Amino acid sequence: MKNELLKNINLPKDLRLLKQDDLPQLAQELRNFIINIVATKEGHLGASLGVIELTIALHYVFNTPQDELIWDVGHQAYGHKILTGRKAIFDTNRQLNGISGFPKRSESTYDAFGVGHSSTSISAALGMAIASQLKGENKHHIAVIGDASIASGMAFEGLNHAGVTDANLLVILNDNAIGIDPSVGALKQYLTNVKKGTEKQDNIFEALNFDYSGPIDGHDLPLLLSELNRLKTVKGPKFLHIITTKGKGLKQAELNQVRYHAPGKFDAKTGELVTKTSEKLPPKFQDVFGETIVELALKNDKIVGITPAMPTGSSLKYMMETIPNRAFDVGIAEQHAVTLAAGMATQGLIPFCNIYSTFLQRAYDQVIHDVALQNLPVIFCLDRAGLVGEDGATHHGVFDLAYLNCIPNLVIFAPSNAIALRNMMYTAQLGINFPLAIRYPRGRGHLLHWKNPFKIIEIGKGICIKEGKDIAVLSIGTVLKNVEDAIELIDQKESIGCYDMQFVKPLDETLLHNIFSKYKAIITIEDGTIVGGFASSILAFANQKGYNQRILTLGIEDKFIEHGSVSQLQQLQQLDVLSIKKEINDLLFFINNS
Amino acid sequence: MKNELLKNINLPKDLRLLKQDDLPQLAQELRNFIINIVATKEGHLGASLGVIELTIALHYVFNTPQDELIWDVGHQAYGHKILTGRKAIFDTNRQLNGISGFPKRSESTYDAFGVGHSSTSISAALGMAIASQLKGENKHHIAVIGDASIASGMAFEGLNHAGVTDANLLVILNDNAIGIDPSVGALKQYLTNVKKGTEKQDNIFEALNFDYSGPIDGHDLPLLLSELNRLKTVKGPKFLHIITTKGKGLKQAELNQVRYHAPGKFDAKTGELVTKTSEKLPPKFQDVFGETIVELALKNDKIVGITPAMPTGSSLKYMMETIPNRAFDVGIAEQHAVTLAAGMATQGLIPFCNIYSTFLQRAYDQVIHDVALQNLPVIFCLDRAGLVGEDGATHHGVFDLAYLNCIPNLVIFAPSNAIALRNMMYTAQLGINFPLAIRYPRGRGHLLHWKNPFKIIEIGKGICIKEGKDIAVLSIGTVLKNVEDAIELIDQKESIGCYDMQFVKPLDETLLHNIFSKYKAIITIEDGTIVGGFASSILAFANQKGYNQRILTLGIEDKFIEHGSVSQLQQLQQLDVLSIKKEINDLLFFINNS
Repeated sequence: MKNELLKNINLPKDLRLLKQDDLPQLAQELRNFIINIVATKEGHLGASLGVIELTIALHYVFNTPQDELIWDVGHQAYGHKILTGRKAIFDTNRQLNGISGFPKRSESTYDAFGVGHSSTSISAALGMAIASQLKGENKHHIAVIGDASIASGMAFEGLNHAGVTDANLLVILNDNAIGIDPSVGALKQYLTNVKKGTEKQDNIFEALNFDYSGPIDGHDLPLLLSELNRLKTVKGPKFLHIITTKGKGLKQAELNQVRYHAPGKFDAKTGELVTKTSEKLPPKFQDVFGETIVELALKNDKIVGITPAMPTGSSLKYMMETIPNRAFDVGIAEQHAVTLAAGMATQGLIPFCNIYSTFLQRAYDQVIHDVALQNLPVIFCLDRAGLVGEDGATHHGVFDLAYLNCIPNLVIFAPSNAIALRNMMYTAQLGINFPLAIRYPRGRGHLLHWKNPFKIIEIGKGICIKEGKDIAVLSIGTVLKNVEDAIELIDQKESIGCYDMQFVKPLDETLLHNIFSKYKAIITIEDGTIVGGFASSILAFANQKGYNQRILTLGIEDKFIEHGSVSQLQQLQQLDVLSIKKEINDLLFFINNS
Repeated sequence: MKNELLKNINLPKDLRLLKQDDLPQLAQELRNFIINIVATKEGHLGASLGVIELTIALHYVFNTPQDELIWDVGHQAYGHKILTGRKAIFDTNRQLNGISGFPKRSESTYDAFGVGHSSTSISAALGMAIASQLKGENKHHIAVIGDASIASGMAFEGLNHAGVTDANLLVILNDNAIGIDPSVGALKQYLTNVKKGTEKQDNIFEALNFDYSGPIDGHDLPLLLSELNRLKTVKGPKFLHIITTKGKGLKQAELNQVRYHAPGKFDAKTGELVTKTSEKLPPKFQDVFGETIVELALKNDKIVGITPAMPTGSSLKYMMETIPNRAFDVGIAEQHAVTLAAGMATQGLIPFCNIYSTFLQRAYDQVIHDVALQNLPVIFCLDRAGLVGEDGATHHGVFDLAYLNCIPNLVIFAPSNAIALRNMMYTAQLGINFPLAIRYPRGRGHLLHWKNPFKIIEIGKGICIKEGKDIAVLSIGTVLKNVEDAIELIDQKESIGCYDMQFVKPLDETLLHNIFSKYKAIITIEDGTIVGGFASSILAFANQKGYNQRILTLGIEDKFIEHGSVSQLQQLQQLDVLSIKKEINDLLFFINNS
């Protein structure tokens, strides 16, 4: 039966030609298609497997793309992509110049709204629904949102507004009791009780004026079809609660939902993960964070750890397992996470608030208003800073240096390696009287041995890695490794000085005076936006102090960066070893000939 | 009975010596005290009058400051301030070097957490409560939050987390059905039904695992005392729902709650507002926005207006009255407001999303991820940008230029006067293919006549206000008026060029090349942070193009700015006419002698 049905489906109009009885077979084919490709090409798995029936039912019942369908977060939309014109190129998923791992407006008219960060779907769909109403169009607007995402404040704001409109909006709660990690919070407990029948169905969503139906089995295609057809005729805001199993159809993915969220390569038949080489690799920065916080917290009982829904991704799970009463997964609630940390800091606790750089954008006001304004010693560990690779434009952590730089009181540190991350965590928990942001990238560093005895890092001090004569490269963060490798490739390497500035704020002005007094030209390099980031602080320093050297600023250009491997993207942004080498050589040529 | 009781109360310990029967009289005295001072010194009125009984009851029953009390938003905390050591200096409220209009940790140990922006109290109190638990302390932690603030997503995130803890947290919902403007949303309707008894009390808050009690009359002191005493003995998260009247005790304030939120000067006896001079004044920028959007929307039916809970403050109320189906107050929900606008923009509507600059910090991720990344033509009208005066550190809109500057695709415009604001609104609704931020200040401009025929503003173009020879002043926004006035005071005024750059992004590079090719020195000026804002873009331009002039950057320094009048704060930040004059003269002296 291999792809008997799927092979003839390129667009939802083809799907709609099938008999209803054929849809379960199509579901099986679609599942297999996804499993076979993700097994070798990698990507998100469990979420898409869980909504195969829903995906088919939605495109079968509704007149997409006229009717508009928004997949919250979007990593569950693989089936949607395959059924909407992207089957033939699905094997380019998440690769440079391939399709995005998330719905994306510029990719397809079936992708009604670009997603990536969670909990935006209700607001966006409501905006569309109100627009349709104003334009006199008779369209359906559907937001599919998971139980982890609906517990985020933004989703509540959308529901709260929708409930006082008569917009033609259908919110489908895809309740599988898990986000990337298992869902948490009071609403999750409540939904569990609804499922068990211990909570009346006259419920929270009805209290918010939604026409609630469910919970129903989200893998039961006939039931889904009949319920969606019924809801098509209901006016105003509607809420359908479906129960699904993340990873449905692949036994290992069902049994180990966290591991199979994005499992890497695996055997498509057995589901067995492809075991990586046993060669000893440098640790992930995440594990450096996770192991170090446990090591420190076992000795310092004031330390607490906070993650908004990323215990596995951040490796805070190690502390949650070892010291559960001081490690908190607060769910997809970055705003709350930051102000919770601020409240804890007022009581003398030492909160390590671990948030992905891209998600701290969700709590920007709280960083300013609740932490920095009160000068509270919250330690932000900004994970996945810089280019994140295949997740692409929605997820790169490239704005943080710029958006944090303008905040008074805040100290901004970017370790160049695992040891510096470890030592700064150690230093911070000794006691600081200011808020601190430590930003580090996704994935592995380059040091195999990193568990050295702790050392104190002096706040605001940069490090001379290598003296030179003509050009000084001022580096911030882990891109230093590329700089060092690039300098090794330069013929006149004795001309090139190299500095790990460590702190974007405060700048090491003493070191900078030494550097600007000595070198003929300066290069700044960072894996964040050039606009507003480290480069702009160096330019402001040079201007204020009257230095007139040529300053070349390397970093992320002023455009959104798409998906691809980190090394591909570094090349595109001229942050890889060879590009840096070329920039240094060009500048050497310039100063030697001017 | 004038202050018979109040005169002897400096701290809550004095209050606790009173007999319970005396407390209603104290409430009356405290009300009068506030009314008498706010009548002449101005400030927030209605909110504090509404919680007088609650304020007394809380400090009477709980052992503050050991027990910790957080006033959400904080403009209702005047009674709290007076009863906690600040009675004698309450007449300095909101004045330069006086006490803050909001609770502030550095001001008093009774101010457990600094507030100003809404909906932070539950998260902060929960953080404190968890900390107390970890430290083995037996303390109470109380968040007082209004019905408008609890509908914001962040509050929901706090409730959702609190409900799965056994933290000793009491959330008091001060339900008066109004924020600054009347509350909106489905939750508000629900609360109204609870009050009417048409909704079971087995309710949303119980669904989130809170021990719910109420609703009770929040002006009934004996009832409040007995209920708070009872709740002191209840473990875990508790929720008390009280009903109050905003402005309680001053008839006009009760009848016209929006006007008396912060009424300006009034007669303390009669409540009559002090009528301002009948002299014709230039309009507020808010009214320029409000009148212009109506004028445009009457002709262009694609225009929609959105405000998160500020219809009066933003003057979107004019459109809400004139074209109600296209003007939306979404409540305190900035995140939702932005993504709702994005959803509308996908359908070809032209959303004007009006958000105070300081509150757009709440929707930073949505601006990046939902609007700019998809390059959707949402028009952000950033009200109260720059220094806002008496509201102080929590409310200054000084970070926007910096935090927006690093966002790709976004165009950033700062009108120098009302006509430019009006013309940019006109230009934008003709059709743009990018997101646009228009930022303008609180209060009045300087132009009496502004309703000129509309003109198109060319995107990315600056304006030469005055040619000069030696120094060019590059100004962004309404601080231009100070620059012009300063130049008038300069002896060598023919030396000074003056440019209204209009756009922070994109920069007018053609104009900048002309300027940098001609002048000996440059001054940039903006009413935003120097770090990361307009100045940093000019420095980057100069560096990239190899210009070596001295560039003096004026703007907001890298620290939080306290409260005071706008003109006082401008002086402190060297943005007033005389400071600018001095800076220009000093620079003239420098270039003439170097």
